[in-house]
Amino acid sequence: MPDADFKVGLLGHGTVGSAFDELLAERAAEIERFNGRRPVISGVLTRTQGDFEEILSECDLLVELIGGIEPARAYVLAALQAGKHVVSANKQLLSQHGEELFETARERDVRLRFEAAVAGAVPVVRLLEESLSATPIERIHGIVNGTTNFILSEMAQGSSYAHALAEAQSRGYAEADPSDDVSGRDAAAKMAILARLAFGTPVHLNDVPYEGIEHLHSEDLEYARELGLGLRLIGTAERRDGGLSVRVHPAFLYPGHPLASVSGAFNAVTVESETITEITISGPGAGGRQTASAVLGDVVSVMTGGARPPAPPLALRLVKDVESAFYLHMEVADRPGVLAAVTKVLGENSVSIKSVVQRGIGENARLVMVTHPVLESSLRAALDRVGAFEFVRSTPRSIRVIEEEFT
Amino acid sequence: MPDADFKVGLLGHGTVGSAFDELLAERAAEIERFNGRRPVISGVLTRTQGDFEEILSECDLLVELIGGIEPARAYVLAALQAGKHVVSANKQLLSQHGEELFETARERDVRLRFEAAVAGAVPVVRLLEESLSATPIERIHGIVNGTTNFILSEMAQGSSYAHALAEAQSRGYAEADPSDDVSGRDAAAKMAILARLAFGTPVHLNDVPYEGIEHLHSEDLEYARELGLGLRLIGTAERRDGGLSVRVHPAFLYPGHPLASVSGAFNAVTVESETITEITISGPGAGGRQTASAVLGDVVSVMTGGARPPAPPLALRLVKDVESAFYLHMEVADRPGVLAAVTKVLGENSVSIKSVVQRGIGENARLVMVTHPVLESSLRAALDRVGAFEFVRSTPRSIRVIEEEFT
Repeated sequence: MPDADFKVGLLGHGTVGSAFDELLAERAAEIERFNGRRPVISGVLTRTQGDFEEILSECDLLVELIGGIEPARAYVLAALQAGKHVVSANKQLLSQHGEELFETARERDVRLRFEAAVAGAVPVVRLLEESLSATPIERIHGIVNGTTNFILSEMAQGSSYAHALAEAQSRGYAEADPSDDVSGRDAAAKMAILARLAFGTPVHLNDVPYEGIEHLHSEDLEYARELGLGLRLIGTAERRDGGLSVRVHPAFLYPGHPLASVSGAFNAVTVESETITEITISGPGAGGRQTASAVLGDVVSVMTGGARPPAPPLALRLVKDVESAFYLHMEVADRPGVLAAVTKVLGENSVSIKSVVQRGIGENARLVMVTHPVLESSLRAALDRVGAFEFVRSTPRSIRVIEEEFT
Repeated sequence: MPDADFKVGLLGHGTVGSAFDELLAERAAEIERFNGRRPVISGVLTRTQGDFEEILSECDLLVELIGGIEPARAYVLAALQAGKHVVSANKQLLSQHGEELFETARERDVRLRFEAAVAGAVPVVRLLEESLSATPIERIHGIVNGTTNFILSEMAQGSSYAHALAEAQSRGYAEADPSDDVSGRDAAAKMAILARLAFGTPVHLNDVPYEGIEHLHSEDLEYARELGLGLRLIGTAERRDGGLSVRVHPAFLYPGHPLASVSGAFNAVTVESETITEITISGPGAGGRQTASAVLGDVVSVMTGGARPPAPPLALRLVKDVESAFYLHMEVADRPGVLAAVTKVLGENSVSIKSVVQRGIGENARLVMVTHPVLESSLRAALDRVGAFEFVRSTPRSIRVIEEEFT
C-alpha cells in the first residue's frame, strides 16, 4: 500500500512559515479529498532547531521560506539535486540565481514553484505558466509592490511623500527601512522573475533598470489628478526592437488603463497579447496568510502533477534604451526666449513635444510638457543640456507616460 | 519511436473553429518546443463533411465547437466513453448536462476542459481549477456577459436601452435576437458552470434564478451616477446559510468594488476567500480569436498533463431566497400620508430602510429608497402590497445593491 502522506519539509517558521504550517493543517483533509494524498509537515528548520539533511531526506517537497541568498540558495540547490520538488517565496534568490536553479530542476526533472515570490496571493505566475502557456505574450505591465502603490494612493489624496510613507509603516505595509520598496528594487526583482516566465529569457535583477518613487513631488500627483491620469510604480517587460526590455519606473497611465484604477496596497498585472488582447489579474498585496495561501497552492500544484518543469531558456537580447512618452516638469525664469531655448534643445535631441503648459509662479514659470515617444537616452541628453541653462530654476523632472494602445 | 503528433479532432468550423484551426497552426512549433509533441488537426467535422466515428477513432483529443445541446452532447459523451479527452466551448451543454459529462470523464479518467465556455480569453476556469484549488472559496462575483456590460456602459453615458442595444448589435457584440444575453440567461449558464467548479456542487442552469437588464431605466443609471455607484449585470455564487446561492441580476456596486470599474464589452470575475481576501481577473469578452486562444490553452493544458479530472460532486444545498440590500424606486401621488403608508408596509415585511429620497415631479413624487439587507421573498411580498396602493403611479422597481465587505 503506498504511503498516502505527501511530506513537506519546511525551512523557516517566521510570519509566513507559521501561517503556512497552520493553513496546511486546516486544508489537509480537503486536499486529500480531491487529491488522494494528504500533505503533512514532516520537518521544520529554524535558526535554533532542526537538521537540514534529515529534513531533506524525509520530505517529498521542500518549502523554502527563510529568504535572502545564503543559506537559502545552498538549501534549495541541494534539494533540487537530491531530486526533491521545491516551493520558494524568495524573490531575491530567484531573481539573482534563477537560471542555476531552473537548470538544476530541469536536469533532475523536479518542480520549482515560486508563486509567492511575485505578487503574493495574486496567482500571476500560474496565470503565465499555465493559463497563458499557449499565448505569445507581447507585454506585461505590473504593479508588483503594494507598499509603493499604497504610498502613491495616499499622495494622490494630498498626502506628502513623508506622511504617506509613515502611514504605510504604521499599517505594517512598509518596513522600518523602506528602501527596497521605494527604490523600485523589490519590484525589479519581481519583474525579472515574471519576464523569465513570460518570455523564456534569463533575466537577472541586474538586467532590470529601476527608478523609485522617492523623487516624486505632490505636484506631479496634482498634475495627474487634473488630467485624470493615474500615477503608479509600473514594472514593464515587453518585446522591443526584436529583443526584450524589462524595467521599473513611475508612470502616468491613461484613465482607461486596467492598472489606473488599482489603488491602495494592491498588486495587479496586465498581460497583453495579440490573441487575448489583454488580461488583468489583481488582488491585495500579501500578508502572511495570503502568502502562505500562494505557497500552499504551489504545493498542491506539484501534488496534482499540474506543475511543469521550467522551459529551457531562449536567448532574447535585453534592450536597455527604449522609447517612451514623457511628462517633463521644470521651473524657469519667466522671461522671453526661455520656451524657445528649451524647445530648441529638445528638438535637437529628437524630443518632439505633444503638449505644453506654462504657468506663472511669481518671477518664475512652471513648464509642464508631454513628449511624443522618444528614446530614453535622447531624453536624458536633452534634459542634461536644458538643466545647464542659467534660467532653469530646478532640475528638470521626467516621468514616463503609458498611452492607450488597445481601444 | 513514439508518435510525436498530438492529434486533435475538430467538430465545427465556424468563426471559432476556423480561428482555432489557424491559431493551432501558428503556435504548433512553439508548443512542440516546450512540450515535446506537436498538436495537429487530424480531422474536421462540419455540417456537410467529415465522419464523426472516423475523426473520433483517429484523435487523442476532441474539440467541440458546434454549440447547442444535440448532437454536441452525443458526440462529447461518445468521445469521453471512448477514452478521449474533450475540450468544449459549449456553455449550454455544460450548464445543462455537466454532471453526466463530468461523471463520464471521471470514470474513464480523461480530461474535460471548457475555459472558452465561461469568459472567453479570461482564464477564470483555470484560475479556479488550478491557481485557487487550495483555497476555500466564499464567493464569486462575475461580469460574465460582455454584451450586457457594454449596453450598461453606454446607458451610463446617457444612451437609452434601445439605442445602446442597437449600438451593441452594430458592433457585433449582440446578436439579432439578443434575448439570451439581455435576459441574463447566458450569464446564468456561465455562473452555473463556475459555481460547480468553485464549490464542487452540481448546479444546473435551471437552479440559477436570473433577471436581465431589459427593465432597467436610464433614471436608474442616473441615480447610480449621482451616487458614484456602478450598475452592472452581476452573477453571484456564494456560500449562504450553510448552502450555496447562485443567481444573476443587475446590481449597484459600491465605488471601490473591483467590478465597478469594468466597462465596455469586458468580462471580469472576483473570487473572495478568507485566505486570499479577493482576486479579480478581467479582460475583453471574446471574439473568435480570443475564444480560439482559450480553446488552444485547454488543449495545451491536457497535453502537458496539467488538467485534473473533475472532482466528485459535493452535496451543498441550493439556497434560493437570500438577503440583499435593495434600491427601490416608485412614483406615488404627492400627498400627506403616502410615505407613512409605504414605510409601514415595508416594516411589516421586515424591510428596513437605510435611506430615502423623495422628489416632487409635478403632482406626483418619486420615492427612492435603499434598504438594509432583507430576504428577497420579504421584499417581493412588501412590493406586491405597496404596488396595490391606489396612490402608486408606477410599478415599484427594485435593484440589488452590493455593499462593501472588505476594507
